[in-house]
Amino acid sequence: MFKPLIKEIVEFRDKRDWKQFHNPKDLAISLSLEASELLENFQWKTSEAAIDDNIDNIIDELADVVIYALLMSNELEINLEQAIKRKIRKNSQKYPVDKSFGSSKKYTDLQD
Amino acid sequence: MFKPLIKEIVEFRDKRDWKQFHNPKDLAISLSLEASELLENFQWKTSEAAIDDNIDNIIDELADVVIYALLMSNELEINLEQAIKRKIRKNSQKYPVDKSFGSSKKYTDLQD
Amino acid sequence: MFKPLIKEIVEFRDKRDWKQFHNPKDLAISLSLEASELLENFQWKTSEAAIDDNIDNIIDELADVVIYALLMSNELEINLEQAIKRKIRKNSQKYPVDKSFGSSKKYTDLQD
Amino acid sequence: MFKPLIKEIVEFRDKRDWKQFHNPKDLAISLSLEASELLENFQWKTSEAAIDDNIDNIIDELADVVIYALLMSNELEINLEQAIKRKIRKNSQKYPVDKSFGSSKKYTDLQD
Repeated sequence: MFKPLIKEIVEFRDKRDWKQFHNPKDLAISLSLEASELLENFQWKTSEAAIDDNIDNIIDELADVVIYALLMSNELEINLEQAIKRKIRKNSQKYPVDKSFGSSKKYTDLQD
Repeated sequence: MFKPLIKEIVEFRDKRDWKQFHNPKDLAISLSLEASELLENFQWKTSEAAIDDNIDNIIDELADVVIYALLMSNELEINLEQAIKRKIRKNSQKYPVDKSFGSSKKYTDLQD
Repeated sequence: MFKPLIKEIVEFRDKRDWKQFHNPKDLAISLSLEASELLENFQWKTSEAAIDDNIDNIIDELADVVIYALLMSNELEINLEQAIKRKIRKNSQKYPVDKSFGSSKKYTDLQD
Repeated sequence: MFKPLIKEIVEFRDKRDWKQFHNPKDLAISLSLEASELLENFQWKTSEAAIDDNIDNIIDELADVVIYALLMSNELEINLEQAIKRKIRKNSQKYPVDKSFGSSKKYTDLQD
């Protein structure tokens, strides 16, 4: 399902001959940097104020995060859709409904 | 195109009554934390060694990053596909092919 | 003023023969990862709840952040005390009192 | 040992009436953002190239990281010097010399 978007992003990259820079370690760094730029929109603010002030930039930075995620999945030949479905199943086991209902605790802190 | 995945993620969330925690600011924090957990796989290592040692965890953390990105797009009613296409167009203008070909410079440092 | 602490940290590092891993790029990655681990204590929580639940871990992670900052300053031969004083002076110019009083705006958004 | 620097930073803050924004959660966010800005200097580059191109900015961003760390220690009344010494002792136990010598493995992966 992500293939058409990945194709567009790879075309953008290849026109600029940027594949040479896109090793997985630097892609992971870049993904983290873009996530921080997204978060910066919420610095010193409530969610509501951040959205009022910065929604356009929030949309752009969220897009950048996913663009780098798609580039990394492409570089590592990860089927992202399968990976997400598998992770939801794993999270379902880490966070059983009866123990985690209405709780924000980390799975390591869930009590028996 | 992201709707079926978002539906699965929202079901996972709602079964646990977690919507109450998922305000956009905390989602942005969580997205940044997951991006760091992805990056941690590359700490002190080359890309190759990281992949050899940690590919399973890399796949899981990349999935978590995209899961939070999808949750945020859902919460803010962002059409993520449109947002990505729009951002590619913006990046194309920020990084004209003739100035950025083969260069890793930031757009603010591209010379006329 | 940071020298005695740096000496202790370098001794800890050298006993384990870890200097070989501590190139500046990986130190910058590690500093960012530790800052995220600090932030994780505040995920889904108010400041007050985070402190009630996690103050011991907050103290430890804040210490780790500064340990990596000191290692990086040592590696790059940066006089951290001078650097901080210089940065306060720079910030004073970027954020003149009359324009930034009581405002959380970024310096690029301060109005004339 | 950090008191004189903290005093300067708090004076800078109070002249601008910024204490109102500096709750611990937002300080933790800001510390993470500054660590990312430091890391950005190393994006797509070797350590050597990053230092050649960006050493002035690296110094400034490292200073910002420590400034926020000092603000947080002040806000939470953490004795940062004691915290660092305590964390070095903890790390010494997590990473015994005989098991961690010359190894970049995480303590959870150290073998008996």
